[in-house]
Amino acid sequence: MEGSTPGLADVLAARRRQGSRVRRTPVLDDPRLDEALGRPVAVKAEFLQRSGSFKFRGLDNSVDSLSPEVASRGTVIVSSGNAGQAAALACAIRGVSCTVVVADNAVPNKIAAIEALGATVVRAGMTAESVFGAAQVLAQTHGLAELHPFDRSDVIAGHGSMALELLEDCLDIGTVVVPAGGGGLLAATAMVVKAVAPEVRVIGVQPESCAALRDSYVAHRWTPLAGAASSIADGLSVEEPGHLTLSMVRSWVDDIVVVSEEEICRAMTLAWQALRVAVEPSAAASIAALQRYRWPGGREVAVATGGNVEPALLAHATSGGTAEQWRQNQTS
Amino acid sequence: MEGSTPGLADVLAARRRQGSRVRRTPVLDDPRLDEALGRPVAVKAEFLQRSGSFKFRGLDNSVDSLSPEVASRGTVIVSSGNAGQAAALACAIRGVSCTVVVADNAVPNKIAAIEALGATVVRAGMTAESVFGAAQVLAQTHGLAELHPFDRSDVIAGHGSMALELLEDCLDIGTVVVPAGGGGLLAATAMVVKAVAPEVRVIGVQPESCAALRDSYVAHRWTPLAGAASSIADGLSVEEPGHLTLSMVRSWVDDIVVVSEEEICRAMTLAWQALRVAVEPSAAASIAALQRYRWPGGREVAVATGGNVEPALLAHATSGGTAEQWRQNQTS
Repeated sequence: MEGSTPGLADVLAARRRQGSRVRRTPVLDDPRLDEALGRPVAVKAEFLQRSGSFKFRGLDNSVDSLSPEVASRGTVIVSSGNAGQAAALACAIRGVSCTVVVADNAVPNKIAAIEALGATVVRAGMTAESVFGAAQVLAQTHGLAELHPFDRSDVIAGHGSMALELLEDCLDIGTVVVPAGGGGLLAATAMVVKAVAPEVRVIGVQPESCAALRDSYVAHRWTPLAGAASSIADGLSVEEPGHLTLSMVRSWVDDIVVVSEEEICRAMTLAWQALRVAVEPSAAASIAALQRYRWPGGREVAVATGGNVEPALLAHATSGGTAEQWRQNQTS
Repeated sequence: MEGSTPGLADVLAARRRQGSRVRRTPVLDDPRLDEALGRPVAVKAEFLQRSGSFKFRGLDNSVDSLSPEVASRGTVIVSSGNAGQAAALACAIRGVSCTVVVADNAVPNKIAAIEALGATVVRAGMTAESVFGAAQVLAQTHGLAELHPFDRSDVIAGHGSMALELLEDCLDIGTVVVPAGGGGLLAATAMVVKAVAPEVRVIGVQPESCAALRDSYVAHRWTPLAGAASSIADGLSVEEPGHLTLSMVRSWVDDIVVVSEEEICRAMTLAWQALRVAVEPSAAASIAALQRYRWPGGREVAVATGGNVEPALLAHATSGGTAEQWRQNQTS
């Protein structure tokens, strides 16, 4: 855990610093989506955020808070992809060098996007230990500033602007459903919502196969996965929830639910058919939750966190392919 | 030509009627896009419009202007797909029945989307004559109201709200580039821009293989294609420009340029890589124009008109496939 629990003032200060660098993303509703789900819903289109996901909100704030001296030595971050792209863009804007440490199974188009932004990508095995270990070594040997993809006060404060926009733009919201890996966006959203509009329900969603944050939330103690995380939702394939995020999630989140791989795959297809938008599996998890569960009282809004999907996976899913078939194709 | 040339008052009245049915679409800029194109540009994200394209703006206004008596008998429209989806949605919202006449080579996912909105799809050959003839027969025998995909005052007036939003949201705009098939959006945009901000340049773009509006604009007379229109940009595959649209285009458009099939394909890939958005080939034509041409004085904005792309085509293009390879795959 790095830094104390961020509050509303931290979120508002981050939002002020973000200025026009962070895009205000629209809330999309559509009669076809409402009809498919049987009630009024909406999607917060964070896949339109700069760098392709909500992660830019937090990482932009982290890089912004580095002193010029620290920034001049460069940064390093561990990321399955989206946080890496966000950090790379935040650094590129400011002329700061950036190294991104990824797991060996990181999605190719995410790696290409990180490199296109001028960052250096280092592959470092398949476990949280190996990748975080590599990042620490790089930080120590080169004096790089370690950024964190979710478990830091400055990242969470930056993520909080998403919830502010949502509360301003969606007046009939009753429930917000947030995909959770490490839990940064969920923690930020829950803190902001419970401070500003406590009657609005905040629900986290994780893949059944990578539900460490849900397990921790239910067990009332930090509970990492027993094995390596693996889900079609690569952005949610996180073995260890954050400590700071878990503490915030336990304070303010109403529930964390799970969805299956096939539900995620079908939700990608629904987003395409009803809204004609390409969302990544991690983002589709929140839409999948709206397909599987239902919360009374006001509009249910799924946060579609990113658009970094492989076009081939979108083609596979929208032509009726299953998550299991995709997994088999990828490993064969 | 149906109806007189619409003016600003018609556009503002249409916008007022559209209310919240029409989505205000964001203007997306991005350092990666600016870097790829070597100067500040932006994309007006009409692929986020309801029904998946800008066509909903105009068709919603057309259906809205039918008397209850006329509407009760139903509507018919000729469309390569996007206007059909837009008409189907505009009718579905109001409980009006809708028949969409398409060419035999219409894109499957667009037909599926039209049917999913409750409209009836009729295939009627490969020429403008055969499809417009079929629509007239249906209109006469069943008393259906004929909607037009572009060449009517009410459609053009509805399309005009796109330009109003753009002028309000993009204060440093110097040039707007608009894909043109029949020319409805280009005509509307040019009329609005030249009335409100005449210093802003309005450029149309067509595929080299389907440039009937450009040919007519250059020749100063209505000049349909000699043969059937065929382009990867199916939404721009139009044999006959409108008469009303041509008259407006000649009055207010600064230039009409052309782009090749391969340039369109590469622009789809650029939109994906730089913005992580899936745009259809017709929409990519405007981005292709920014790759091929350059206009001085202020930000150049490409209108990305729709998102109804086959996911398989997006996968093909983003993995380096060419337009020619795609065409051969489709016909083999």
